[in-house]
Amino acid sequence: MSNDPRLTPLAAALPASVPFVGPEAQERARGAKFTARLGANECGFGPSQLAIKAMQDAACEAWMYADPESYDLRDALAVAYDIPPDCIVIGEGIDALLGNLVRLFVTSGDAVVTSAGAYPTFNYHVTGFGGTLHTVPYAGDQEDPVRLIAKAKDVGAKLIYIANPDNPMGSAHSGQDIERMVAAVPEGCLLILDEAYIEFATHSTVPAISPLDPRVIRMRTFSKAYGLAGARVGYAVCAPAVASAFNKVRNHFGMSRVSLAGALAALADSQHLAHVVESVTKSRARIASIALDNGLTPLPSDTNFVTIDCGRDGVYARHIVEELGKLGIFVRMPFVAPQNRCIRVSCGPEPEMSLFAQALPQALRGVQSYTKL
Amino acid sequence: MSNDPRLTPLAAALPASVPFVGPEAQERARGAKFTARLGANECGFGPSQLAIKAMQDAACEAWMYADPESYDLRDALAVAYDIPPDCIVIGEGIDALLGNLVRLFVTSGDAVVTSAGAYPTFNYHVTGFGGTLHTVPYAGDQEDPVRLIAKAKDVGAKLIYIANPDNPMGSAHSGQDIERMVAAVPEGCLLILDEAYIEFATHSTVPAISPLDPRVIRMRTFSKAYGLAGARVGYAVCAPAVASAFNKVRNHFGMSRVSLAGALAALADSQHLAHVVESVTKSRARIASIALDNGLTPLPSDTNFVTIDCGRDGVYARHIVEELGKLGIFVRMPFVAPQNRCIRVSCGPEPEMSLFAQALPQALRGVQSYTKL
Repeated sequence: MSNDPRLTPLAAALPASVPFVGPEAQERARGAKFTARLGANECGFGPSQLAIKAMQDAACEAWMYADPESYDLRDALAVAYDIPPDCIVIGEGIDALLGNLVRLFVTSGDAVVTSAGAYPTFNYHVTGFGGTLHTVPYAGDQEDPVRLIAKAKDVGAKLIYIANPDNPMGSAHSGQDIERMVAAVPEGCLLILDEAYIEFATHSTVPAISPLDPRVIRMRTFSKAYGLAGARVGYAVCAPAVASAFNKVRNHFGMSRVSLAGALAALADSQHLAHVVESVTKSRARIASIALDNGLTPLPSDTNFVTIDCGRDGVYARHIVEELGKLGIFVRMPFVAPQNRCIRVSCGPEPEMSLFAQALPQALRGVQSYTKL
Repeated sequence: MSNDPRLTPLAAALPASVPFVGPEAQERARGAKFTARLGANECGFGPSQLAIKAMQDAACEAWMYADPESYDLRDALAVAYDIPPDCIVIGEGIDALLGNLVRLFVTSGDAVVTSAGAYPTFNYHVTGFGGTLHTVPYAGDQEDPVRLIAKAKDVGAKLIYIANPDNPMGSAHSGQDIERMVAAVPEGCLLILDEAYIEFATHSTVPAISPLDPRVIRMRTFSKAYGLAGARVGYAVCAPAVASAFNKVRNHFGMSRVSLAGALAALADSQHLAHVVESVTKSRARIASIALDNGLTPLPSDTNFVTIDCGRDGVYARHIVEELGKLGIFVRMPFVAPQNRCIRVSCGPEPEMSLFAQALPQALRGVQSYTKL
């Protein structure tokens, strides 16, 4: 039809699917709000009061574009982590940074390696730029650095993706394991180390990597431990040659001025960060206890969520997620077998935990009533 | 070098240049803040107090991701303009929407038509996705719809870009002229009608175009008349087949929750919008008067800025911009001859206008002192 938009062949071939349906769409479908929002690994403990205040003050200045260089935040991060500012790229969340990174490195037919069941939004970007995804299975409930590297060598990958700690399983490798992985990155390949959940890790998961190391790019965010998911501020740490390449393609005026002010204040409030990490630790124990009370198996977590093994298959876990949804509890689950035997429950304040504790037995009864058919 | 990042051939070939240097970078270079920020066509009259209040309230909810469908804002826009919600795409400013649009339509070697000296960020995206830019000159101080269409036919363009009203010249075509242009769009081509400044137009510049018309996509923004440049909220109106294509590539969780709340409140405050438009009208007259007082020629403006013909060439105008900068006045100028004989001054409150009025004679003297060499 001549009236069809004349998309590129790649764009025409892309599926209309989206990485995640938002809880709001589910709320509209069910005609009621969720009472416990525990599905998106947001930080129910909220951002720092100082960050809220900074955003409220910045709201009055929202008539001005943000500094396209995000200089102040880059400078603060450089000081906080003692790294050169030109190793830092600021973006509209890790999602935007991943999109631009894939755009810079991947064109039609280029090979990219990730784990089967790892972050779908990364896969969305790889597919979106015509790359070919190669996956390796999880080793138990962990991503498998050795097989990821082997696969990358095998297929000549330009990018490898690993999250440490991992989403959706909550597991983590030690910093030393990651250092060994970096050392083994094949020539011409870049390792994406997604550290969105690093602040929650219970043991040393932070590798000693030079920010100048050209083999790795690390992704961090203000969405999780800093409680600013809705502000959309992420950053990458990488060699200056990689960082400067982002300037060729990024949306230079894409950052919200209000969000940058919030991130800057959040970064300075280490007391609130400690409070969130402590609250998350308690909440993990609470979720684990709720799971055990219901005959389910909580997996160890180095993140702000607990992945619960429901002991059967993906259909069963999907039913539990749906039953919980009917009861007003928003949770999600892994996409791929065998991880999809689990449901994934975000940490949150005690009122939401209580609601989850009340709903879970009822959801399990609801599932049993029709899985026995 | 094996340590160089293995960018795609396209990315490797892209220049490191950026569409605009921000005023903050200039402030850092000069070691002092600008006293009048009149260079980015921001709205110095500020956003609605209701929008500020909405953003301040939403700051407390910044721990939650925004609804990836931006349902509430799309719904409000659909009601406000009496168009179907599935004709509306929300994005992180028009810049982000242009980027995704170009990505959907343009691949290596595809032809795109724009005016020489029109919006550089659009060109940045076209180049960034490997497209070939074809330009036609302005006709006087206006873009030339007839030549744009003729060039598009000539080169088989997939996209044509026109801004109405125009940036950087401030001129506008009538809505009927645009309707004629839409009717002449060649088959297989899509017209991008950038209406960022439409609320400021002094006469009927709004064309009667069905939102279902597959030949055109209109870009609107909350950055200009709504005073929310720093919030990054733009929207496109287009046929549903084009709108849904954005879902294949956009950053679904890219919008700030705080910004969406601000835009929603701003849209509802028609009283503030009227106040801004009235203030801009007065400010345009003020800028024109200042220009005339200094022997310069203000061009007619249908926008929130006045482009001032300085009567000589681009070098002369560049010197004036630089001299004004030294005096604390941030303004910009067109990039391309012959438009670059002008400087471009954004409307703003009277204190900034006074500062501009004081600085301009001094800047002109400063320029004369070294152009006489």
